[in-house]
Amino acid sequence: MSMITPARDRVAAELTEQSTLTDSDRPGWTRRALSEFDVSGREFARRLMRQAGMDTRIDGAGNVIGVLPGCLGGRQIMLGSHTDTVDGGGRFDGIVGVLGAIEVVRLIQEHGVRVDHDLVVVVFFNEEPNDFGLFCVGSRAMTGQVDRSTLAATDPSGRSLAEALPKSRIDPGDFLDAAYDFTPVTAFLELHIEQGPELERAGRQIGVVETITGINHFRALFTGRQDHAGTTPMDVRSDAGCAAAGTVLAVESIAESGANTRGTSGQIRFTPEAVNVVSRNASLEGEFRGPEGSWLNEAQRRLTAAAGSEAEKRGVEVEIEWTTDDAPVPLHEPITTTITEVADELGLTRATMFSGAGHDAGVIAAKTQVGMIFVPSVDGRSHCPEEFTDLADIMTGISVLLETVLRIDRRARG
Amino acid sequence: MSMITPARDRVAAELTEQSTLTDSDRPGWTRRALSEFDVSGREFARRLMRQAGMDTRIDGAGNVIGVLPGCLGGRQIMLGSHTDTVDGGGRFDGIVGVLGAIEVVRLIQEHGVRVDHDLVVVVFFNEEPNDFGLFCVGSRAMTGQVDRSTLAATDPSGRSLAEALPKSRIDPGDFLDAAYDFTPVTAFLELHIEQGPELERAGRQIGVVETITGINHFRALFTGRQDHAGTTPMDVRSDAGCAAAGTVLAVESIAESGANTRGTSGQIRFTPEAVNVVSRNASLEGEFRGPEGSWLNEAQRRLTAAAGSEAEKRGVEVEIEWTTDDAPVPLHEPITTTITEVADELGLTRATMFSGAGHDAGVIAAKTQVGMIFVPSVDGRSHCPEEFTDLADIMTGISVLLETVLRIDRRARG
Repeated sequence: MSMITPARDRVAAELTEQSTLTDSDRPGWTRRALSEFDVSGREFARRLMRQAGMDTRIDGAGNVIGVLPGCLGGRQIMLGSHTDTVDGGGRFDGIVGVLGAIEVVRLIQEHGVRVDHDLVVVVFFNEEPNDFGLFCVGSRAMTGQVDRSTLAATDPSGRSLAEALPKSRIDPGDFLDAAYDFTPVTAFLELHIEQGPELERAGRQIGVVETITGINHFRALFTGRQDHAGTTPMDVRSDAGCAAAGTVLAVESIAESGANTRGTSGQIRFTPEAVNVVSRNASLEGEFRGPEGSWLNEAQRRLTAAAGSEAEKRGVEVEIEWTTDDAPVPLHEPITTTITEVADELGLTRATMFSGAGHDAGVIAAKTQVGMIFVPSVDGRSHCPEEFTDLADIMTGISVLLETVLRIDRRARG
Repeated sequence: MSMITPARDRVAAELTEQSTLTDSDRPGWTRRALSEFDVSGREFARRLMRQAGMDTRIDGAGNVIGVLPGCLGGRQIMLGSHTDTVDGGGRFDGIVGVLGAIEVVRLIQEHGVRVDHDLVVVVFFNEEPNDFGLFCVGSRAMTGQVDRSTLAATDPSGRSLAEALPKSRIDPGDFLDAAYDFTPVTAFLELHIEQGPELERAGRQIGVVETITGINHFRALFTGRQDHAGTTPMDVRSDAGCAAAGTVLAVESIAESGANTRGTSGQIRFTPEAVNVVSRNASLEGEFRGPEGSWLNEAQRRLTAAAGSEAEKRGVEVEIEWTTDDAPVPLHEPITTTITEVADELGLTRATMFSGAGHDAGVIAAKTQVGMIFVPSVDGRSHCPEEFTDLADIMTGISVLLETVLRIDRRARG
């Protein structure tokens, strides 16, 4: 162990400053990707990297990449997370991993610790879901998982992602050329808040992530018949709204049937949306998550059947489209073992975890060995203004991140 | 029987011309109250009244009132309906009753029929629900059922009805002074399309309305807890959206339990409306209708309990507000008997009916004896572009309206 302690006041001040770079017209702390606030958020992180003596650049997909050359160079250890938030989100999701990574680089320099690897810190562009139905946009671009269809994705107003990117100072002409060469990357590490209640419930300081959730996201459109709400007898209606409501309950009950499985209906709209009209259409968007691909496939099958049944019994048509079909990502055993050893040697309480949230780490896992370190979320809250993590827990997480970097670096030294 | 036949081509041309006075930016035939199109729609009817030799005026609440003096005068028979439509509505709802009433006046004049009563034709302002949660606005103003709270009602943008009225050329300062003196009114008659499938199903030409539906309209706001959809286990969620969806199904099943009873959930919204966030809030608007006040009270009680139960089992709070509580209106037996006799003597097939739709006739029934004549709606469709009634059926309805006027007039003569 290095016995180096993170600089608590410095990180606290940066967390506070970053939290001011948000849209004051929105609730909570809102810094959505593709907004001007997101540009400021990434610029702030880049300034901290420069102050830490890193060479920085922004790739074609808006990822901020800072490099601290190692003593040997050539091989890299990559750290990072994101600075964008959901609408009405909190101050910790993503930011803790970005500031934690930069703090690790600073501590290594300030304490003159020998590190052979180049340390690469990445602020990934647009981790949270955007209006184009996309998320982890920057990490997907770095791993070559984007193409012309990504740029052509549209938001509800019909605008394409290609049209929206310039607002984030991203040239759509460069977007497809942001693939990163992961050959020299020994490992990628992401520090993150848990965003759930498990660590707090169990009274543990550190979560070692074993699996990142799979996500199956659906859009369903129910088409019934628009009718007068007063004159149309119940038995001749084709009420698209009731079919959609029945499907919301099916999402809930299917999700309750698994272990560590989740199902959520986040958006619903009836059309024409008038209190005295039987709905002609109802749109519904939702998702399933879980650690097992087989359960996700089964949930997808069961929900498709349930939506069909809710529709059919009311004479309604339904089209259901599974827009995201991301399998669960197991993280890499050598890295999770290292994190576990570090936590134990630092005398910390820890738990192995399933991450119900998606993360850039899950995307990067296609290209290099990946580990994630979780710190507790008070009351398990996240994606809301109440999201909170104690500074002491953040410091503990940074210590684990630092020691894991040093141990991976030393191990590669042989 | 007078053996007078309505002028089919004239009425058809007027129906067509009226249908052009609509908002081409909206689906179907849209002429909503408080829009410029509604002003044109009422002006068109007023021009027809003038051409028919009636004295016309517009009262303080935007009702167009035309008078054809009778041979004796003093007593009045009132006829009328409305020209406003729902968003994306049809060409027949309301208009058939307005054009039919004017046609009756014209036929009486053209054929030199002696009528002792003054004939009063009213185009009621704003029968359909508006954005201020109000409907039958003009007829309520004529019967003195409006007050300052009516003018203070707000739309979702926070604008008051008083602020919106000038667009319809109504001075809010005059709005509360539009009460009509119903003392001399012998009867009110409204010809209307059925808007439901009963007459067509039964193969009948004329519906004699016995009862106009009661309407209980509710707004429910569910308040749960906003959480991350991936990290929050199902058993610790307070998902406002699922509670609202369960309530939609409760509306449906309660309505299916009665005879001639209806229940509809027309509007639902989740907040923050993001696919990866457990909903903090869900708003729901719906209604019950039925011919029995006791059933409506019971439905209200059952739905309040069901919403509470759907909320409680998910740790969600619910506030439910019953914003409209209009009891069913039985129409007046002497008038319905007269309509029935007329239909029989004209050799028409007929059915006694429950009106699941609310009508100005139901409001006017508080002040004078009221009858309603229904003509069939093709496929039972209404409040949609597909709304259709055969011209032959409209002619039949006008004949019944005419003969009923003449019979009421003669009967008063003694």
